Amino acid sequence: MVTAAAYAVTSSTSPFEKTTIERRELGPLDVLIEIKFVGICHSDIHTAHDEWAGTHYPFVPGHEITGVVVAVGPDVTRHQVGDRVGVGVFVDSCGECDACRGGEEPFCLNGATTTYNSKGRDGEWTQGGYSTHIVVTEHFVLSMPDGLELDTAAPLLCAGVTLYSPLAHWGAGPGKKVAIAGMGGIGHIGVKIAHAMGAEVTVLSKSLAKKDDGLKFGADHYYATSDPATFTQLRGEFDLIANTVSAKLDFDAYMSMLAIGGTLVELGLPEEPIEVDAFSLVRNRRILAGSLVGGVAQTQEMLNFCAEQGIAAEIEVISANEIDEAYRRVIAGDVRYRFVIDVATI
Amino acid sequence: MVTAAAYAVTSSTSPFEKTTIERRELGPLDVLIEIKFVGICHSDIHTAHDEWAGTHYPFVPGHEITGVVVAVGPDVTRHQVGDRVGVGVFVDSCGECDACRGGEEPFCLNGATTTYNSKGRDGEWTQGGYSTHIVVTEHFVLSMPDGLELDTAAPLLCAGVTLYSPLAHWGAGPGKKVAIAGMGGIGHIGVKIAHAMGAEVTVLSKSLAKKDDGLKFGADHYYATSDPATFTQLRGEFDLIANTVSAKLDFDAYMSMLAIGGTLVELGLPEEPIEVDAFSLVRNRRILAGSLVGGVAQTQEMLNFCAEQGIAAEIEVISANEIDEAYRRVIAGDVRYRFVIDVATI
Repeated sequence: MVTAAAYAVTSSTSPFEKTTIERRELGPLDVLIEIKFVGICHSDIHTAHDEWAGTHYPFVPGHEITGVVVAVGPDVTRHQVGDRVGVGVFVDSCGECDACRGGEEPFCLNGATTTYNSKGRDGEWTQGGYSTHIVVTEHFVLSMPDGLELDTAAPLLCAGVTLYSPLAHWGAGPGKKVAIAGMGGIGHIGVKIAHAMGAEVTVLSKSLAKKDDGLKFGADHYYATSDPATFTQLRGEFDLIANTVSAKLDFDAYMSMLAIGGTLVELGLPEEPIEVDAFSLVRNRRILAGSLVGGVAQTQEMLNFCAEQGIAAEIEVISANEIDEAYRRVIAGDVRYRFVIDVATI
Repeated sequence: MVTAAAYAVTSSTSPFEKTTIERRELGPLDVLIEIKFVGICHSDIHTAHDEWAGTHYPFVPGHEITGVVVAVGPDVTRHQVGDRVGVGVFVDSCGECDACRGGEEPFCLNGATTTYNSKGRDGEWTQGGYSTHIVVTEHFVLSMPDGLELDTAAPLLCAGVTLYSPLAHWGAGPGKKVAIAGMGGIGHIGVKIAHAMGAEVTVLSKSLAKKDDGLKFGADHYYATSDPATFTQLRGEFDLIANTVSAKLDFDAYMSMLAIGGTLVELGLPEEPIEVDAFSLVRNRRILAGSLVGGVAQTQEMLNFCAEQGIAAEIEVISANEIDEAYRRVIAGDVRYRFVIDVATI
């Protein structure tokens, strides 16, 4: 067993406290990673606060992990000690079902294991990356290409692939008009990726407060959704809208901005159900779809793409004792654009 | 002007009464059709009862029209007197916008004209096919291929293409598992078309009452949605579900029957909004889409396909004085499977 220092919450309302957790003994295919940085994702907050129900306490969040390999099991071939690596939202799956064999590990038919708050295949609850070390089976350990820094690349492991996957799947590229709804932690990376893919990119943000940033990140246009004129002006405009906003939206209004056959991809997980009028779908053959990070191969492809294109997250590095304050600021929308914990401070 | 006999309602609660209506003088590109048969579509009932709001009275429904050309304008080249023809849900569009030029006339950016209850491009309200004659611009007049009978083919003009279009668009064919939800007027044609396209077809119907028919029409499997076990048994099963049910459904339960990347296409137009949990979309990258009949070229393609494959609707032919009773029976689900009015009785 490896004893790791970690920051955990013991209930949905308690503050983070320093603690120690045990990581499993290295199995033949396991990799022991010394974590360097870990991003704060909104899912961490939802789970810490038990907003999706089912949080097992004490709970250590964190699934935007970067670090360095410090030990490997005897059968590991994909990584070696000293490698710069990353870990995202999933740490295990059966490896044998159609989904796993098709590179769709998150959709494992036998149930994929998430990086935290999941019962692993050994029956133990997984604990995330607000921690000095983690043990992960090699298949789920990503290689960090040269050119990506471990701090600014950490958010790519969840936020990055959350946008990369649907943009790639729905064909964002030259000649396509793509809107990114929400200029937050994942949205701002989406702007960079969609621009790098060659699409004409529009940001749909509540206000114009972050417009300068949006244009700097590669947006061609920037509209405030608090202005009703935005919706009439952009009627029938987009081939693809990637929605990163978790707050309740008027989906019919957003769907009306899609061109014939256009797609709105839902990436956030609002607590309330999505409501959409059937006419919004039927008229102009519109599509409402969902997307959830990506498989291992696609996550590696995303990291390589970001390295080639010079894409990384805009971050604010914090110490571990600032997590509670960071959570408050994320909830208030007061971060440009992602908090990343310097794990050396744990 | 051509004076035509017709059956109309004068308010949302009044019975059908025989009346006369004026059809416009033949323009250079117009075709005068003597109507032989007209199907009763659920949209007729919604509109007659003003359930979608905006019905203009007196109102003549009917957009599943078959008949014979009896006169043509001087510039008409696509049809001639004596031709067997059909008219569906749309009778005009601008012809110049991107949608029209792309064969997507129903999505005309300047507003397509529906066969009834629509202000035509001449400013007059359109009146449908419960009538002895209709004048339609030649582009929107379909040719009825040999092998299709005017009575059993009438429902193809709306119900048929409503299913053909999404089945073709979403790739129903060999190796694909397709479910048709609802074994009614449009669903039963969907079963025949999906089977003819080579898909493995499952009917999802409230009960097993129409199972024998379903299997006869080409279904490989038949399940009752009133049995909760259906949803667990079919979890993750389908590549495509075509939903013809207008009643409020538990969409999350239906989405759970989709495979990874699977699509539920909504074809009905329920009055209440569709409610779906974001998790239902995000998990397994599922898609909720809409579809609305098809363009002129696709409608012709559908008719040709049905003629080649020997596909037609199962119908009950009625006289014009039986329309009110037929409406009651459609609402009660008591028709196998489509009422068609013999226009000789008008």
